[in-house]
Amino acid sequence: MISLERYLELVRANLRPVEVETVDVRSARGQVLASPLIAQRSVPAFDNSAMDGFAVRHRDLQPAKDSSLPRVWLPVTGQIPAGPFNADKLPAGSAMRIMTGACIPDGADTVIAVEDTDCPPGPVPLPTKISVPTDVPLGCHIRRQGEDVKAAETLACEGSLITPALIAACLAVGVTSVQAYRKVRVFIVSTGDELQDPQAPPHPGMIPDTNAFLLSSLVQEAGAEVIGVGRSADTVQSLLAVFNQAAQPDLVITTAGVSAGAFDVVKALKTQADLHFHKVAMQPGKPQGYGSLLISGRQVPILALPGNPVSAFVSFHTVVRAALNRLSGKGSSPHPLGLELLPAQAAQSWTSPAGRTQLLPVARAHRSDAIQVSPICPGRSVSHRVASLHRADAIAVVPAEVTQVNSGDAVSIIPTI
Amino acid sequence: MISLERYLELVRANLRPVEVETVDVRSARGQVLASPLIAQRSVPAFDNSAMDGFAVRHRDLQPAKDSSLPRVWLPVTGQIPAGPFNADKLPAGSAMRIMTGACIPDGADTVIAVEDTDCPPGPVPLPTKISVPTDVPLGCHIRRQGEDVKAAETLACEGSLITPALIAACLAVGVTSVQAYRKVRVFIVSTGDELQDPQAPPHPGMIPDTNAFLLSSLVQEAGAEVIGVGRSADTVQSLLAVFNQAAQPDLVITTAGVSAGAFDVVKALKTQADLHFHKVAMQPGKPQGYGSLLISGRQVPILALPGNPVSAFVSFHTVVRAALNRLSGKGSSPHPLGLELLPAQAAQSWTSPAGRTQLLPVARAHRSDAIQVSPICPGRSVSHRVASLHRADAIAVVPAEVTQVNSGDAVSIIPTI
Repeated sequence: MISLERYLELVRANLRPVEVETVDVRSARGQVLASPLIAQRSVPAFDNSAMDGFAVRHRDLQPAKDSSLPRVWLPVTGQIPAGPFNADKLPAGSAMRIMTGACIPDGADTVIAVEDTDCPPGPVPLPTKISVPTDVPLGCHIRRQGEDVKAAETLACEGSLITPALIAACLAVGVTSVQAYRKVRVFIVSTGDELQDPQAPPHPGMIPDTNAFLLSSLVQEAGAEVIGVGRSADTVQSLLAVFNQAAQPDLVITTAGVSAGAFDVVKALKTQADLHFHKVAMQPGKPQGYGSLLISGRQVPILALPGNPVSAFVSFHTVVRAALNRLSGKGSSPHPLGLELLPAQAAQSWTSPAGRTQLLPVARAHRSDAIQVSPICPGRSVSHRVASLHRADAIAVVPAEVTQVNSGDAVSIIPTI
Repeated sequence: MISLERYLELVRANLRPVEVETVDVRSARGQVLASPLIAQRSVPAFDNSAMDGFAVRHRDLQPAKDSSLPRVWLPVTGQIPAGPFNADKLPAGSAMRIMTGACIPDGADTVIAVEDTDCPPGPVPLPTKISVPTDVPLGCHIRRQGEDVKAAETLACEGSLITPALIAACLAVGVTSVQAYRKVRVFIVSTGDELQDPQAPPHPGMIPDTNAFLLSSLVQEAGAEVIGVGRSADTVQSLLAVFNQAAQPDLVITTAGVSAGAFDVVKALKTQADLHFHKVAMQPGKPQGYGSLLISGRQVPILALPGNPVSAFVSFHTVVRAALNRLSGKGSSPHPLGLELLPAQAAQSWTSPAGRTQLLPVARAHRSDAIQVSPICPGRSVSHRVASLHRADAIAVVPAEVTQVNSGDAVSIIPTI
């Protein structure tokens, strides 16, 4: 047996990120930057008002302030809506009404919020004069050009996930087109003579194929593209025929046929492809395989997962996630597993097998001081319990050396929803 | 001012879930069940083997065990692969090779794993006899029909999110077609004379429209459908024209034009629609509006968000999320805000405004005992900092009565990635 950490290293080392494409960042959510993001413009692009209010010269308030007057009247000489710049200039000794986001006029250096004046807020006629407080700091309510980011600054590094906020940042700094790793294309194959189309009437000895749809929806949820779903009987010929239906995948995922059975079809591929099968010290999910195989003249990476649905599920959240992160250009997290884990607390006690990393489906409860987790099927083997798995929203990851988790113990979890 | 809790209640009370549709559950990921999920079949569908191994009669081991023999030889009378049932029957005093998931043959009551026999695992010829241990429990390695779920049991209630695992559960229990709330259709309109198409060359006084794309990608990430994105100048005529481009939305979201400005166009709609504007005790995001307006003869709910990008972002993760949860048929969480918050810990100290719920963009670090969070822009106003916001992966939610958060304090967060 090899450790889960070591197996994930092997899987990652067998993979390279997919090709880079130039893409409109507005449609690249979930992809990963393939080059640093450099600001083409400053943000803010120009000095502008942070409030709806009145732009003034700070020194025009000084004489009244020196005379201990709390307020002063200024004539209003115009107004500046947000929008195209009109070369506005503030005459000395006056105020101009200004809207949030509008350019600060030449000569003005301070903005007084409308709420601090005698002018009502909202769409009222422009007053001819305005009462403003004298005790306001110089530069108040002005956002300076470049105070958020300056042109030529690096905003985000290669490997950054393109989130909604990163899309907004790109647009704000004048970048609409980015270099990004393209979406990872995945082909999924369930194997087993016992698998039926889920819509077929039940036949003795047969079960509905759930793994193919479990995995395809998990892969989509992780942001990759499912280019096809196939189902194979337990013969190498059938399996190779299904593989050849795949159009240029970056990754093939199979389920079942990797264990100690006499008819384990994926394991039987070993004679025809560069495949490595391991017993991985994890529970469930021990039998695992990775490698590559020739599909339409291309060597395509493959991950061979076990067939029990819960084993396939925990394998997805560890092995497949690690692979998708690598293929998509994301880095690994600093956690020893290279995955994003959250700290949580056991709400109950449970046992864990010696020498194997336990991956236990759990349900979370969010308390104010901790995320508490409880096994969805306490004290019972779960790897075949496909009808109960949906009650889990996380996987507790119990290290190989721990055999007993007590109520209140710290435990790391992989959120699955 | 009204509290954020109260405002979210008002927003929710103004909304009803969208229509229910009958849908193939395999393509319904992210939708919400509109009726309980009842199992049509038991899981497992039949007694089957949990291991690759040999099916035996437990009482056939007893004589050897009674004689203190640790192992016994049994003749092998056949094998049962997983797959179509062949009315197999285990002759008394013999063993049959059986694969994981295969039907337990009539007469067998115990399975012995191949690793516990003298037969090598994998595709080896069927042995004529097999050495098995005598000290195995009755019923070992057999999964009983219905031990996961029994036909007619309720698996999930109305309001359950259709996750990959719930899709698998549906298929496993013979359900391919479900009643689900259809996807929520959202139309997004940014307003402001200062907004440019992000691809246009920079014009003085103008800024790239980031809010429309920030919100559309956030709405998509939340699982709803964006049916259109529009941009309006600061006139009611322009805004109504943009609204009329929307094809049957369930929700319209606008940004900007809701505050104290003289040209606040969304607020100006009040004379023509059933809109309610509030000062909400939150920072940022104070000016908010909700209600409904007539689009192509239908009353359509509207949420009017403030225009500062960070204000729009935190409004999305509170107000829009609450609305989408309600429209999509999801319930609210038990948290007072009705949202899913995670417990975290402040990694630094910061101040928070008195009397307003602070919604502070923070970056998370996952320690083994806690999620630690740090403000992305310590000690500075952030509501316009659209180019920095991408560094946040959560929003810290500081209650209105707290004015100082100290390093080490517990703090609730809304994860945003």
